Amino acid sequence: MLTGCHTDGVRTARRPGPTERIRVREWQGDDVVVREDKLATEEPLEIRLSWPGAPARGFVTTMRTPGHDFALATGLTYAEGVFTEIDDVRTVAYCTDVDLLPEQEYNVVSIELARRPVRWSERTLAMTSACGVCGKQSIDAVFDIGAAEQPVEPTLDARLARSLPDRLRDAQRIFDTTGGLHAAGLFDADGTPLLVREDIGRHNAVDKVVGQRLLDRGRTPPAALAVSGRLGFEIVQKAAVARIPVIVSVGAASSLAVKVADAFGVCLASFVRGDRMVVLTHPDRLH
Amino acid sequence: MLTGCHTDGVRTARRPGPTERIRVREWQGDDVVVREDKLATEEPLEIRLSWPGAPARGFVTTMRTPGHDFALATGLTYAEGVFTEIDDVRTVAYCTDVDLLPEQEYNVVSIELARRPVRWSERTLAMTSACGVCGKQSIDAVFDIGAAEQPVEPTLDARLARSLPDRLRDAQRIFDTTGGLHAAGLFDADGTPLLVREDIGRHNAVDKVVGQRLLDRGRTPPAALAVSGRLGFEIVQKAAVARIPVIVSVGAASSLAVKVADAFGVCLASFVRGDRMVVLTHPDRLH
Repeated sequence: MLTGCHTDGVRTARRPGPTERIRVREWQGDDVVVREDKLATEEPLEIRLSWPGAPARGFVTTMRTPGHDFALATGLTYAEGVFTEIDDVRTVAYCTDVDLLPEQEYNVVSIELARRPVRWSERTLAMTSACGVCGKQSIDAVFDIGAAEQPVEPTLDARLARSLPDRLRDAQRIFDTTGGLHAAGLFDADGTPLLVREDIGRHNAVDKVVGQRLLDRGRTPPAALAVSGRLGFEIVQKAAVARIPVIVSVGAASSLAVKVADAFGVCLASFVRGDRMVVLTHPDRLH
Repeated sequence: MLTGCHTDGVRTARRPGPTERIRVREWQGDDVVVREDKLATEEPLEIRLSWPGAPARGFVTTMRTPGHDFALATGLTYAEGVFTEIDDVRTVAYCTDVDLLPEQEYNVVSIELARRPVRWSERTLAMTSACGVCGKQSIDAVFDIGAAEQPVEPTLDARLARSLPDRLRDAQRIFDTTGGLHAAGLFDADGTPLLVREDIGRHNAVDKVVGQRLLDRGRTPPAALAVSGRLGFEIVQKAAVARIPVIVSVGAASSLAVKVADAFGVCLASFVRGDRMVVLTHPDRLH
């Protein structure tokens, strides 16, 4: 429903947490045990946009783990080219429309922009997602969003790069209790974690760290992004838009992730486990 | 671009495969080796729809691993409620529009329907995805798509259910070469794999097996769906629409996956590894 979005109302609902309790039945060999367990929470988040002269309207609805929702909304819209400067974001807030049910109160985030998005299309009520119908068009779309090819300079120690998945795991507080969350972390050049966020969706975890960095007005770009999952097109798109020079993962990368990383000067390191690391693009980023 | 879609033209492009070769630089301890490696291919697929009196129009574009594209397009549109009976699908074909570049020729699939989709909205040029802005609305949307609560009867041996992830892995031909693909398999009640498909996206792998089963006019519903990844809302939505009674995964499930499975009578089994299995919903499905 595309209604106006008020942010000054009163919220009555309990804020959803990152995990929920459930009673499960566990088979262990021939034994069956009934016990309590925790699950990662998954709930939809609707992101609405407004700008001067335009009422709030739905931009996208995504499934996510509640928590750090303003960062998620900020990072996701930034990755899609809705804005290029965080100063163009006036407010980010939960909607408190009277038409929202209590259980929806923490599932709608409204972003008020200082200006109309460049790539906004009234026809589809949404931006043109970076897609195209071939890999080359997909890469062109990332250029259109505002990502630029970065100069390839040595920015990160190779041995330190290999340690990032372990550092990311150390920084995950929720992981051990659910086993169901993806993590993303921003690190500086000496391996210090700047931000770590989790989500049921690996794209969302990246949006959350990038968005939080924007909201924090972090002026120095992070040296690396570490993710717990596989490296697909969208992860690299998000890093390219955010000017992150190195991406590290324990998982595999896709062909299109490599092409985007190659085009934008991003070093992509996959299968980083123990003292192994498979670098797919721009090894000159590592020293 | 929303153009008409012709399927009788001549294709000139080389069909993309499920993997691509790449030169990588691998760190092993202090040694660096340059060698060839394989990556899972990721390319966009645009799905277009047409029906009597309506020109072909874009429905959705999704990143996917090429291969079994007609099954993917069929399964994805079925899961979204575009059609409820496979007999309402007249043709599924690659587009050969003159406006398509050679590298796009295998990235656009057109589905010709016998009738207009019930839930089609001209305003958005797309269906209303099963989302809503709270868990309850998301579940209601799955009911709207045409999924119905299934009677909960014992349909699968519990020990056999625990063996399905191993059986799925045995049936994956590509997995060992890329390590980057998700798998989904349909199994009958004695554990025989009916269909196994892989994709860079775990949702796509499920769409491919469900869609292929529809195209094959498989009349008996499969006894179980096994997936290699985590169990989120969309995976269970797709199984519920396809009337699949049991879903088995080595991974964790989300809170909303559990709620949808509970609402539609689907048994959800997570963390199925070795002789362990954590059943989250409807254990009475297992005997």
